[in-house]
Amino acid sequence: MNINRILETCLYVNDLHVAEQFYKKILGVEPFSRVEHRHVFFRCGPSMLLLFNPLETAKAVGDVPTHGAHGPGHIAFAISPDQVADCREHLRKNGVLIETEITWPSGGQSIYFRDPAGNSLEFATTQVWE
Amino acid sequence: MNINRILETCLYVNDLHVAEQFYKKILGVEPFSRVEHRHVFFRCGPSMLLLFNPLETAKAVGDVPTHGAHGPGHIAFAISPDQVADCREHLRKNGVLIETEITWPSGGQSIYFRDPAGNSLEFATTQVWE
Repeated sequence: MNINRILETCLYVNDLHVAEQFYKKILGVEPFSRVEHRHVFFRCGPSMLLLFNPLETAKAVGDVPTHGAHGPGHIAFAISPDQVADCREHLRKNGVLIETEITWPSGGQSIYFRDPAGNSLEFATTQVWE
Repeated sequence: MNINRILETCLYVNDLHVAEQFYKKILGVEPFSRVEHRHVFFRCGPSMLLLFNPLETAKAVGDVPTHGAHGPGHIAFAISPDQVADCREHLRKNGVLIETEITWPSGGQSIYFRDPAGNSLEFATTQVWE
């Protein structure tokens, strides 16, 4: 058994409408599907980014297993080194506070910010993990 | 701005040692790095799977932004249709309860199970999202 690709990554948000607008504008992703009050899904290259209302996913409905976490989660989006300056400018232009920037010993660069629900998001060059 | 790849996906666990053994055995991933009581990271193909102790990541230490969620999260791992039977057998052989299996209208297949921390994990064929 060797599982070598993550197909779905999920975050929980308190306001799906606000989150949808934020992810569309800041990440340039388009909704793939949505269920009012429950979720909005975005295709993000080869995988899916799932935003859920944890109060709804915690309810047993049908066959899909329950889940739902509370508190700030974290995910990182891959960027290339030549996108770092553009990403920084993109966040600033859109009024998104850059919480911190880190240059790692590997030479990788990270820009950290928050979504409106408080999740910690990161633009990271793949060198972070090399 | 078009972000089209997730580089880091994270889950929170209450026991990192137990989680590490589970993910190694069930997913066939090897630890990339670990910090006792705080995290264990796995390379999972082109991205990283980060398992954190949310009590530690919630503490402000250095420059890395705080985060940390509580309650069951969810991620899915991509498999091919010809791996479905093997995945089912692999879970059964290792004493991992299959919570449910779903065949979606698209023809995609999902096998759901839990990690020891209660996170909802899924083996899913990519047809789920086609």
